[in-house]
Amino acid sequence: MSAKTRWIDEEYQGIVRTGFRLERRVFKGKSPFQSVEVVETKGHGKLLLIDGMTMVSERDEFVYHEMIAHVPLFLHKRPRSVLVIGGGDGGSVREVLRHPSVERCVLAEIDPLVVEASRRYIPLTAKKLSDRRCEVKIGDGVAFVRDTTERFDVVIVDSTEPFGPAKELFGPAFYRNVSRVLTADGIVVSQAGSPFYEIDTIKNLARLLKPVFPVVDAYLFTNLTYPGGLWAFTYASKGLRPVKDFRPARVAAARFPLRWYNAEVHAGAFALPQFLKKALGR
Amino acid sequence: MSAKTRWIDEEYQGIVRTGFRLERRVFKGKSPFQSVEVVETKGHGKLLLIDGMTMVSERDEFVYHEMIAHVPLFLHKRPRSVLVIGGGDGGSVREVLRHPSVERCVLAEIDPLVVEASRRYIPLTAKKLSDRRCEVKIGDGVAFVRDTTERFDVVIVDSTEPFGPAKELFGPAFYRNVSRVLTADGIVVSQAGSPFYEIDTIKNLARLLKPVFPVVDAYLFTNLTYPGGLWAFTYASKGLRPVKDFRPARVAAARFPLRWYNAEVHAGAFALPQFLKKALGR
Repeated sequence: MSAKTRWIDEEYQGIVRTGFRLERRVFKGKSPFQSVEVVETKGHGKLLLIDGMTMVSERDEFVYHEMIAHVPLFLHKRPRSVLVIGGGDGGSVREVLRHPSVERCVLAEIDPLVVEASRRYIPLTAKKLSDRRCEVKIGDGVAFVRDTTERFDVVIVDSTEPFGPAKELFGPAFYRNVSRVLTADGIVVSQAGSPFYEIDTIKNLARLLKPVFPVVDAYLFTNLTYPGGLWAFTYASKGLRPVKDFRPARVAAARFPLRWYNAEVHAGAFALPQFLKKALGR
Repeated sequence: MSAKTRWIDEEYQGIVRTGFRLERRVFKGKSPFQSVEVVETKGHGKLLLIDGMTMVSERDEFVYHEMIAHVPLFLHKRPRSVLVIGGGDGGSVREVLRHPSVERCVLAEIDPLVVEASRRYIPLTAKKLSDRRCEVKIGDGVAFVRDTTERFDVVIVDSTEPFGPAKELFGPAFYRNVSRVLTADGIVVSQAGSPFYEIDTIKNLARLLKPVFPVVDAYLFTNLTYPGGLWAFTYASKGLRPVKDFRPARVAAARFPLRWYNAEVHAGAFALPQFLKKALGR
């Protein structure tokens, strides 16, 4: 590498850093909530960074978004209404709207700058935010689930880490209200951190979910740009069991492209390593 | 981070780099084959680096070594003799020797410096190289499988990337000889690169294996210190199918500690994402 090689580095817990080869800085802005940045890299396409943490890379965002959306949406018999909290980049909405049963998808994102920057610079993820079935509500997701009279079949908590504007999404009141807005077969999945580096985030979420939902579990996904590469979602539902109630035939019948998710990946993602099973008391 | 913060950075394909917080350099040597280095980090324990690429971190080496060893060893009905090619750090041998049926484990490592540095500085992985059932043979693994008259139930190819001293391990002659040294129920697993960054390595290995073995597959593992975090092993056997012939009861009966591997993880690791299934023609 020549002396001119530039990297965009993300430090994590003071012990590891991940750097991507920087081609050019595309956008940097600051909202009342956080800094929002878009850069073009060599090898990973555009990155969206919030407070210096990579949220999305164009190269592999399909993994995260397929796994957060299709696991609950293929489990539910006929998801009609979906709520995405956070996820202002639009990638989760894009995958949700691939399901023809979905009539309405609400995105509750607290920071308009994330939505604006994504619409402008990362259409790969944001393009479906303009779909007629999608309503973008700029505002606090915690307040939205507290106040709304709408009901949803699936809630997707596509949030940043448990500090800053996302902090309340990792609190107890939030999930009681999520349960209230979910229909009888409802499912909620949430970004839950790294099993290696922040197992307490997953344990804390599981502890919040257990008194509220009869079914609580976790599943794993891979992400090239998150430290260590292995991260988790929590899963909770009013009754649907994530593997036993899963019908692979629904995936086989799907008429849209899938690059990562398939029926085996669905079941395999819930195969938790021994140390994580123990930590979650499973 | 202060200006004094030091990192040990690994660049990969000129597009990504991973850095670990350096506490102190422990050892650096050069063999006729490669450079061998041991460093102490903050947060990941000691790292073993070969030609600047991280091979092992004390924090998460158990994942790699449990997955490379226990997948074939729990599949085989009664593995008695095992050959490890490469793997001079000793982590694979340690996991192999946990299986009480194993009477003999040969390690064929080309570079004595890897073994010496690991014995001296990373006993966590190397400690079982002194077990009476283990024989360390310093020499070329390619020549070993060509010339030996011994037979093995399982062969583990625990190699570096497909260049430098490991190059021939990714060639066609090697696997014909592996088949020759395997017993009738024999299994071979091999480190096969990153599905994201070097899918051609996996495809090439699968292409080499298919004319030689009736059963060829791949499975995934996670590694905190390898770029992107998601990597693959290939699997090939003379008949045993990796999921259909797997007996979870064998794992349940095991009387040794497992931190990562369990029966669900075994099956889940063979759930390949859609793009990889397509690439492998599965």
